[in-house]
Amino acid sequence: MKGIYFDGKKAVYREDLPKPERKPSQSLIRVVMADICSTDREILKGYRPDFKGIMGHEFIGEVLESGQEELVGKLVAGELNEGCGDCIYCRTGREKHCLSRRTIGMSRDGCFAEYMALSTHLLHPLPEGLEPELAIFTEPLAAALEIVKQVRPDPSLNAAVIGDGRLGFMIAQVLSLTGIDLTVIGKHPEKLKLFEPFAKTVLMDTYLEGDGYRSLKGEECFEYVVDAAGNPSGIRLAMSLVRRMGTIILKSTYAGSTDIDLSFFAVNEVTLVGSRCGPFAPALKLLKEGRLRFPPVELYALSEYERAFASRAFKSGFRM
Amino acid sequence: MKGIYFDGKKAVYREDLPKPERKPSQSLIRVVMADICSTDREILKGYRPDFKGIMGHEFIGEVLESGQEELVGKLVAGELNEGCGDCIYCRTGREKHCLSRRTIGMSRDGCFAEYMALSTHLLHPLPEGLEPELAIFTEPLAAALEIVKQVRPDPSLNAAVIGDGRLGFMIAQVLSLTGIDLTVIGKHPEKLKLFEPFAKTVLMDTYLEGDGYRSLKGEECFEYVVDAAGNPSGIRLAMSLVRRMGTIILKSTYAGSTDIDLSFFAVNEVTLVGSRCGPFAPALKLLKEGRLRFPPVELYALSEYERAFASRAFKSGFRM
Repeated sequence: MKGIYFDGKKAVYREDLPKPERKPSQSLIRVVMADICSTDREILKGYRPDFKGIMGHEFIGEVLESGQEELVGKLVAGELNEGCGDCIYCRTGREKHCLSRRTIGMSRDGCFAEYMALSTHLLHPLPEGLEPELAIFTEPLAAALEIVKQVRPDPSLNAAVIGDGRLGFMIAQVLSLTGIDLTVIGKHPEKLKLFEPFAKTVLMDTYLEGDGYRSLKGEECFEYVVDAAGNPSGIRLAMSLVRRMGTIILKSTYAGSTDIDLSFFAVNEVTLVGSRCGPFAPALKLLKEGRLRFPPVELYALSEYERAFASRAFKSGFRM
Repeated sequence: MKGIYFDGKKAVYREDLPKPERKPSQSLIRVVMADICSTDREILKGYRPDFKGIMGHEFIGEVLESGQEELVGKLVAGELNEGCGDCIYCRTGREKHCLSRRTIGMSRDGCFAEYMALSTHLLHPLPEGLEPELAIFTEPLAAALEIVKQVRPDPSLNAAVIGDGRLGFMIAQVLSLTGIDLTVIGKHPEKLKLFEPFAKTVLMDTYLEGDGYRSLKGEECFEYVVDAAGNPSGIRLAMSLVRRMGTIILKSTYAGSTDIDLSFFAVNEVTLVGSRCGPFAPALKLLKEGRLRFPPVELYALSEYERAFASRAFKSGFRM
C-alpha cells in the first residue's frame, strides 16, 4: 500500500508498504483523510529520534473489518494512544498516559497511508451528515475541550488565550462557547483578525515594559489564562496576566527548561493546569452541529507529501 | 504598652509603645497568647525590608471593645490580612490577596504586644472550652486546610507530603483526617517518628539516583503530592512522585527562581496548585473536637523575646 514512512531521519513516500493486519481487539480502517499536525513537523526535526514507521495521527477512516460488527462501513475518527490495558493509568481512565502506550505516528504506524489497524475502543463513529473535511478537526478540537473538562471555567468571569496560532484558534473558539468574556493575545495582527468574531484581540507588545511584562491591577487581570504561545514567553506573560487565586492552563510544549519563580504560585495561590489530549465525543457533537468555523483544509495526494508538509495553510493534509 | 518592635533591622523589646486605637470597623483586642511563625524569623533576616512596626501575626486575644457587641469579652483568633474592601479581590472573597492589603506583623502593627486593633470581620470566636494553648494552632492549621479546600482530594487515592517540618506536620495531620493512604517523606528520621501514628514515613534519600530522583512506575507514584520542603528539592522530587493527571500542591516559598521543565506539566497533564492561608472556621472546629495532636507550645514573656526566637521547640511564643 501507499504511505509516508519516516525512516528515522526523513519522510519517504512508498508504495510497497505492507497492508496492516488487525488483532482481534483492533479494527482495520481504510484511511479517507489525514491531517498534518505540528507534531508531525516536529518529528521531521528530530522530536522522536527512536521512531521509524508510518507517520500521522489525525485521520478520518472507514471501518473495513472489526470485532464490533456495527462499525463496519462506518466513518470514524480515532484516538491516538493504545495503552497496555493493565496498568494503573489504563485502569483509571487514563489510557493516554499509559507508560507503555503505543501512539500512532509516533511510536507505531500511523495514518498517512491507505490502511491502518487501531484498537476498536479508540474509534468514534462520525455523527450522520458530518463531512470528513470538518470531522478532521476532531482531534485538535478535543485537545481544546480538555481545558473545559479540566477547569470547568466559570462563564461569569474572564479568560485570556495567549497565542494566535492554530492551537490558540481552537482553544479560543471552544472557550467562546461558554459565553465567557474572552481576550486573545497574539503577535500577528493578520492572524488576530480571525478571532474578532468571537473575542477581543490584543497585541502582545501592549504588555511589554522594559525587559519583561508590566505589572497589572487585579481589574486588568484574568481569572483564566491559557498559554498556547509555544515558547517560554507564554508562561511569563501568563504569570503577569493571571489574577491571584486564578488559573493558568499550560498547553504549550517546548524543549528545554525554563527559569521561573515558583513562589509566585504559592504566594498568589495560582493554579497551573497542564493540558493535552481531550475527549472526542463532545468535539464530534460540536462539529456536527456547526458550532465552530475553520478555514478549509488544503488536501494533497500522499505522493505530494513535500508540498503538503511545506504548506502554510491553516491546516493541510491528505486525501487518500 | 509592652511589645516586640521591628525597627527595620532587628527586633527590640519596648515598654513605651502607644496602645492602639480602634477604627469603627475594628475591635480592640487584649492579646493573650501569640505564636512565632517561621515568617517572623524570615523578617529578622530581611524578608520585609520596608516594614517597621510590632511583629507577629498568630494570636489568641480577648475582645475589649467592638462594634459587634456580642464579641466583647470573648476569646478570638484573627485572620492576618485587612483588605481595602473595594477591589476585585475584596469583592470576590479574596481579601487575603487584596493588592493594598495590610498584613499584621508584616505591613502593619502585629500581635507581639499587649493590645492590637483588627478588623472585626477577621475575628473568629473560640468554641466553648477550647484553650488558647491549642487554639494558637488555628492559623497554621487553616493554611493546611486550604489544601483540602482547593483540591478536595479523593480519599480512595493516595497522597505524599514532602517535608517533615512543622508545616508538613500540619498538612499531614489534616490529610490523614480524609482517610487517604498517606506517606510523609523527609530528611530527618527523628522528625519522621512524629508522623508514624497517622502516616507511612520514607526517607527522601530513598528516591535519589545519580544527580536527581529515580523515575517511578505509575503504581509507585502518588495522585497528590504536597511540597512542603521549603527549598527547590521539593518540586523536583514532587515531579518524580506525581502520577500523570495528578496534582502537586505547592506550599513551599523560597527566594529566587528555579529551573524546571514546564512541558512536564503539559505532557503529563499534571496540575500545580499554589496554596497559602486558609479557612479559620474548620480549623477551630477540629481543634475543639480534639482531632489533632501537637507538641506543646513553649511560652515566654515578651521581655524574653531573644530566647523565644532562638527556641528550637515545635512551636514557641509569648504569653502576655
